[in-house]
Amino acid sequence: MRVDVAFTPAESAAAPTGIVIDVIRATSTICQALAAGYSRVFCTVEVEDARRLRGELKGVTLGGERLGVRIDGFDLGNSPDEYLEPRSPVLAMSTTNGTRAIVAAAERCERVLIGSLLNLDALVDATRSDGEDVVLVCAGVKGAFALDDAYVAGVIAERLGYERTDAAEAAVRLVSSYRSAEEAFRQSRSGRNLIANGPELEADIARCTRAGVLDAVPRFVGMHGVAAEIAA
Amino acid sequence: MRVDVAFTPAESAAAPTGIVIDVIRATSTICQALAAGYSRVFCTVEVEDARRLRGELKGVTLGGERLGVRIDGFDLGNSPDEYLEPRSPVLAMSTTNGTRAIVAAAERCERVLIGSLLNLDALVDATRSDGEDVVLVCAGVKGAFALDDAYVAGVIAERLGYERTDAAEAAVRLVSSYRSAEEAFRQSRSGRNLIANGPELEADIARCTRAGVLDAVPRFVGMHGVAAEIAA
Repeated sequence: MRVDVAFTPAESAAAPTGIVIDVIRATSTICQALAAGYSRVFCTVEVEDARRLRGELKGVTLGGERLGVRIDGFDLGNSPDEYLEPRSPVLAMSTTNGTRAIVAAAERCERVLIGSLLNLDALVDATRSDGEDVVLVCAGVKGAFALDDAYVAGVIAERLGYERTDAAEAAVRLVSSYRSAEEAFRQSRSGRNLIANGPELEADIARCTRAGVLDAVPRFVGMHGVAAEIAA
Repeated sequence: MRVDVAFTPAESAAAPTGIVIDVIRATSTICQALAAGYSRVFCTVEVEDARRLRGELKGVTLGGERLGVRIDGFDLGNSPDEYLEPRSPVLAMSTTNGTRAIVAAAERCERVLIGSLLNLDALVDATRSDGEDVVLVCAGVKGAFALDDAYVAGVIAERLGYERTDAAEAAVRLVSSYRSAEEAFRQSRSGRNLIANGPELEADIARCTRAGVLDAVPRFVGMHGVAAEIAA
C-alpha cells in the first residue's frame, strides 16, 4: 500500500482514498461537530450558499469565519470549542480552503475522508481497513503550501506505515524536525494568524493538536448543489 | 526580503524573481551547457518542436531524453557530462517538467533564473543583487512533488537568508533531515529512475550535487514560439 501527499489541492495526485486536511481549523471543527452529534455538515465556499441552505433545509446551524472573525449573521465561528454540543441536526459551514480541497479530492478519489489530529487514531484505523492506496490532500492557504496541514499529513503518513512517495517522505521528515505539533502549528502562517487575533483564537492552536481524542471519521457523501456534504 | 517555494508549478506563488529548479537533470544540464559556451538554450516540451528549431535556426545541437534514454535522432541526451564543450552556438532541448516550470514561472515573475546546485553561489549572488522577493519554482515530476527539487529549493532558501514562507521553511527543514544532497537525490523518485537505468546514468546523481562549480546564471529571455529561450 502506498501513501502520497498533495501539499496543495492543485498538485497532481490520485488514489482510491483521499484524506483532506485543513487542520487550522476547518477539518478539526468538522470532526468535532460530527463527533458531538451533528448528523450532517455541508461545506460551501461562498457565505451566501451557506445562508441559502438555512432557507432550504430544516434545523440548520450556520458556522464559519472570514479572517478569523465569525461571519455576520452566523451562529458560530470556526473554533472546535464552539461545536462541543449540537445546536441542530445540520451544520452549514462556509470555509474556503477546506471546501475547495474536499471538492478537488472528490474529483480524483473514490472515497474522501476528513482528517485532523483530533480523529487521528480512528482515521488511521478506518484507512487501514479500507486497504487502498491513499493521498493526503492538504487544503493549504489560497492555493499555497501550509505548514500545519503538511505537518499533519506527515503524522498520518508515518502512522499508516505504507510505502511513501517523495511528497510523503518529505512530510514525515517535516514532522521529525519539530518537537511537537504545537511548535509546528505556532510557526505556521495559519497559527500566526490565530495568535495575532488574540488569546481566545490562540487557544485553538492547542485545541487542534490533541491527537486521537475523537472517534468520528467524517466521509464526503456527495455534492448537494454547490455544498460538499459530510457525514460520520 | 522574502523567499517562497512552489513545490509544483501549479502551486500558487508569485514574486518579482522566480528561480526554476529541475535539478535531476534539466536545469543542471542547462547551467552546464551555458557555462561551457552555448550562447542560447531553447527548451521545448515536445520533441517535434526541438526538431523544428534545427530547421529554423543555424548551428543547432539537439539534446534531451525520454525515460532516461536519448531521443531518436538527437545529438545528445540529458547528462550534464555531455555538455562540457559546445558543439554549436545553439542548443535545443526537449524537457517536459523543466520547460513547463519555466513557462509557469515566466507567467508570474518579472525575471526567471535557472537554478541547480552546480551554479549555487553565482545564483545566490545574482539573486541578492537583484534585491527582490523570490519564489523558487520546483519543476517536480508530472505535476507532483519531487524530493530532489524540494531539497535544492531548501538549500537556496537557506543560503539567501531571507524571511521564509511556510513552504520555504519546510524546504529548509527537509535539507537538515539529510546528511548530504547525494543521500537526498538517491532517495528521490528521479534519482531512483537514474539508478534503475544503469551505472552511467547513476553517475549523474553525483554530478548534479557538485555545489557552486559553475558561474553561469541562466536567465529566461522570452518565448521563441513554443520554446523558452535561455541565456547566461
